[in-house]
Amino acid sequence: MTETTEAPAAASQPDKKTPTEGANPDASTTPNEEQQAANGSPEKKSATEEKDAPPAEPPKEMRAVVLTGFGGFKGVKILKKPEPSLQAGEVLIRVRSCGLNFQDLMVRLGAIDSPPKTPCILGLECAGEVEAVGEGVENFKVGDRVVALPEFKAWAELVTVPAKYVYHIPDEMSFADAAAIAINYIVAYIILFDLASIKPGKTVLLHSAGGGVGQAIVQLARTVPNVQVFGVCSKNKHEALKAGGLIDHLLERGSDYTNEVRKISPEGVDVVLDCLCGEECNRSYTLLKSMGKYILYGSSNVVTGETKSFFSVARSWWQVDKVSPIKLFEENKSLAGFNLRHLLYQQDGIEYVKNTIESVFDLWKGGKIKPTIDSTWALEDVAEAMQKMHDRKNIGKIVLDPAMEPKPKPATPAKGKAKAKKEASEEKNGDKEKKGDSDGEKKDETNDKDATAATEGEAAAQPAEVEKEKEKEKENGDATESEKQSS
Amino acid sequence: MTETTEAPAAASQPDKKTPTEGANPDASTTPNEEQQAANGSPEKKSATEEKDAPPAEPPKEMRAVVLTGFGGFKGVKILKKPEPSLQAGEVLIRVRSCGLNFQDLMVRLGAIDSPPKTPCILGLECAGEVEAVGEGVENFKVGDRVVALPEFKAWAELVTVPAKYVYHIPDEMSFADAAAIAINYIVAYIILFDLASIKPGKTVLLHSAGGGVGQAIVQLARTVPNVQVFGVCSKNKHEALKAGGLIDHLLERGSDYTNEVRKISPEGVDVVLDCLCGEECNRSYTLLKSMGKYILYGSSNVVTGETKSFFSVARSWWQVDKVSPIKLFEENKSLAGFNLRHLLYQQDGIEYVKNTIESVFDLWKGGKIKPTIDSTWALEDVAEAMQKMHDRKNIGKIVLDPAMEPKPKPATPAKGKAKAKKEASEEKNGDKEKKGDSDGEKKDETNDKDATAATEGEAAAQPAEVEKEKEKEKENGDATESEKQSS
Repeated sequence: MTETTEAPAAASQPDKKTPTEGANPDASTTPNEEQQAANGSPEKKSATEEKDAPPAEPPKEMRAVVLTGFGGFKGVKILKKPEPSLQAGEVLIRVRSCGLNFQDLMVRLGAIDSPPKTPCILGLECAGEVEAVGEGVENFKVGDRVVALPEFKAWAELVTVPAKYVYHIPDEMSFADAAAIAINYIVAYIILFDLASIKPGKTVLLHSAGGGVGQAIVQLARTVPNVQVFGVCSKNKHEALKAGGLIDHLLERGSDYTNEVRKISPEGVDVVLDCLCGEECNRSYTLLKSMGKYILYGSSNVVTGETKSFFSVARSWWQVDKVSPIKLFEENKSLAGFNLRHLLYQQDGIEYVKNTIESVFDLWKGGKIKPTIDSTWALEDVAEAMQKMHDRKNIGKIVLDPAMEPKPKPATPAKGKAKAKKEASEEKNGDKEKKGDSDGEKKDETNDKDATAATEGEAAAQPAEVEKEKEKEKENGDATESEKQSS
Repeated sequence: MTETTEAPAAASQPDKKTPTEGANPDASTTPNEEQQAANGSPEKKSATEEKDAPPAEPPKEMRAVVLTGFGGFKGVKILKKPEPSLQAGEVLIRVRSCGLNFQDLMVRLGAIDSPPKTPCILGLECAGEVEAVGEGVENFKVGDRVVALPEFKAWAELVTVPAKYVYHIPDEMSFADAAAIAINYIVAYIILFDLASIKPGKTVLLHSAGGGVGQAIVQLARTVPNVQVFGVCSKNKHEALKAGGLIDHLLERGSDYTNEVRKISPEGVDVVLDCLCGEECNRSYTLLKSMGKYILYGSSNVVTGETKSFFSVARSWWQVDKVSPIKLFEENKSLAGFNLRHLLYQQDGIEYVKNTIESVFDLWKGGKIKPTIDSTWALEDVAEAMQKMHDRKNIGKIVLDPAMEPKPKPATPAKGKAKAKKEASEEKNGDKEKKGDSDGEKKDETNDKDATAATEGEAAAQPAEVEKEKEKEKENGDATESEKQSS
């Protein structure tokens, strides 16, 4: 993964876009938009098919999302990197779709244990076609459609992955669906069926109910009769989630939801699924019924959450109450933790995860589950996509498409034109961003940003976001006075 | 439960025995043994059938195991108590068999939360026939064969129990089997199937593998294919348990069994089932694999265990490492506690326990489980029975039979006669006490006794125990020199 060539980072230099072949028709740009073919990816694409190039030739290159240093979005760049060379036991994959996970935000901040050495290619999840197989790999062949969970390196046009982290996908499954399903549904399946052992008639309190894993959990919970789901999420997602009809009781993130739960279910809930950690741990634990199970499967409050400063983040992390086994014994409660990354790369979870993803695909084939894709983004727009997840505005999975054209980021947006364009785009792909935003949420958004996030990359991502916000207000007929004057 | 009449406690006054009708043929006394019909229970028995006795008549009485004060065996007495009066919602049960549980030892010591007010009738579990049903009870009728889990009061000839704690037993099930099954298999079933969610191919580390719950767990584990059980118990039980063939790997209590486990299963185990608490918690936790489940379902080390003094007991209890949910998240581990008493009487577990016992009875009907009964005792011998459990000498369940004649406790034992009698008795009921004892264990017995246990009642229990020990040694041909001379 040595870095030889650096292309200007698109995210931080919005004027330089990387056009790609087969641009996604749902992309929110139109053909007459200004485009600069700066990085020449068409040439590169055809070049990758030549496998026997002489060694003297300069290494072939690919586009990749590279983290150049931990911190804000500034360190996230789209760079040209040499194509990876295939090793024994590995599979070379032509990436068609990438999954964005909350863990990626934590990696960017360096807020995980054993973080990768920078510079490194980001991304934990991708789907695509097998382009070559390394020595000793028997269960894959060129052309196979797969999803892969490399530890990092997934957000690039090509990736080599040890075969043990690669899984065949059903013939009828799109790459976007595969990338949207893999991590989210593996996590959801394991915590719901193996850790919570969810049974008919049980009640579940689910944090981040609108996120990718949250939506997967809700769908899987619906495969068990009479499971009642209390979903906690930002108020701005309530309308869209209500329309989805999968969550029985929507509760507002940050509110005193425990009272709300007690009103409906006085004894509390059977299962708490918490990906936030921090203060939520102590609060939600009190809601557990006897024989209840508390499952912690993430710690996103460390990155976002109510806390603002590094110190309050650290406090919220370390002040999670420790629990004595004796207390659990007296209260008839269980406490479980689940961390897919540790299980897969540091512990011995390879076979277990493989079996799980097969169960998930079986449910998909049976029509029991269907991933909710929030939105699809070009690699160049990854900073904006990450910001959206950071702000908890996504409903379901955010995916990246290496072949997608990046969004235009005009210096002086032409309002009327942008609006018409956006509406057309939204009609086509049913983008939920629109529904996800509300006036009440805007102040929180600003406050929620962690201290390290105010960077160049983030700034680059902002104009388009702000633009959209304003348009929506106009659609809702509640634009501010100044906006009314300007439009 | 007001105390009106006190009979001399048989356990502490070995010369006064309470003869009963229908004495168990397996009892270790013979008809020509000296018997004193001191308490006149035959009269009482027939009197209970008269339901319309005039109010002026003195209250009818029954024999019961009464705890007169917390501490050693001195506080455990067989007393005459007024027959309980039936309230609305209750069932009056003629008790035929009682189960002895480790919890009873803790109640005796007052080492439980919310202990009962003394004097009180001990016992958590009994089986028998319904003799009357209170107002509003619809699912039971006179003559029904039932098992009941009153909170205390079970060790008596009669008991009234709220109908919600009473369960019908299968027609073919003996009362002794019902009393041996109820608590042990409910606990075993819940922790193995609902908390551990045991699956084929998993490995289980089981503490107190020879005890009542341990034996239930082992049998239930055998209903799941390829489950591998590591059983920890006193060395003196290994031979008998090996003969049983249900435990894959027998480990010695007090030894460094973690090394032994690692030799066979280097990654550790999937499930730890711990009823000891104290130091074992921390030690066994390290043996858990990723995705492993640690289940604490008892705290018997508080009463017995390696610790000797009150302070070391307290230390072993409170020094159990507290665990952060974050640690579980990083390690992919679960920690669960199970406490049937709390679930049933303080929390809302009534329906759940009822469903569980039905599942257990179904397994029994299908021939999948069969309770291991260690030994059967008269109410008057309860102190000795408790001592046996305290010393961890039982293999399987200890039950009490209210109709059984107490053991003779001669001041000067006639050795040859006693031996012949005992052998005949053992042939009949296959008493396993014999197998449970070994020379190597005798010293431990003395050391293991908790500080509060050296009391009058205990002393009374000792002669018979010592007598038996000596006889067995002779049978095994390894009597000491002095014994050889005396026989």
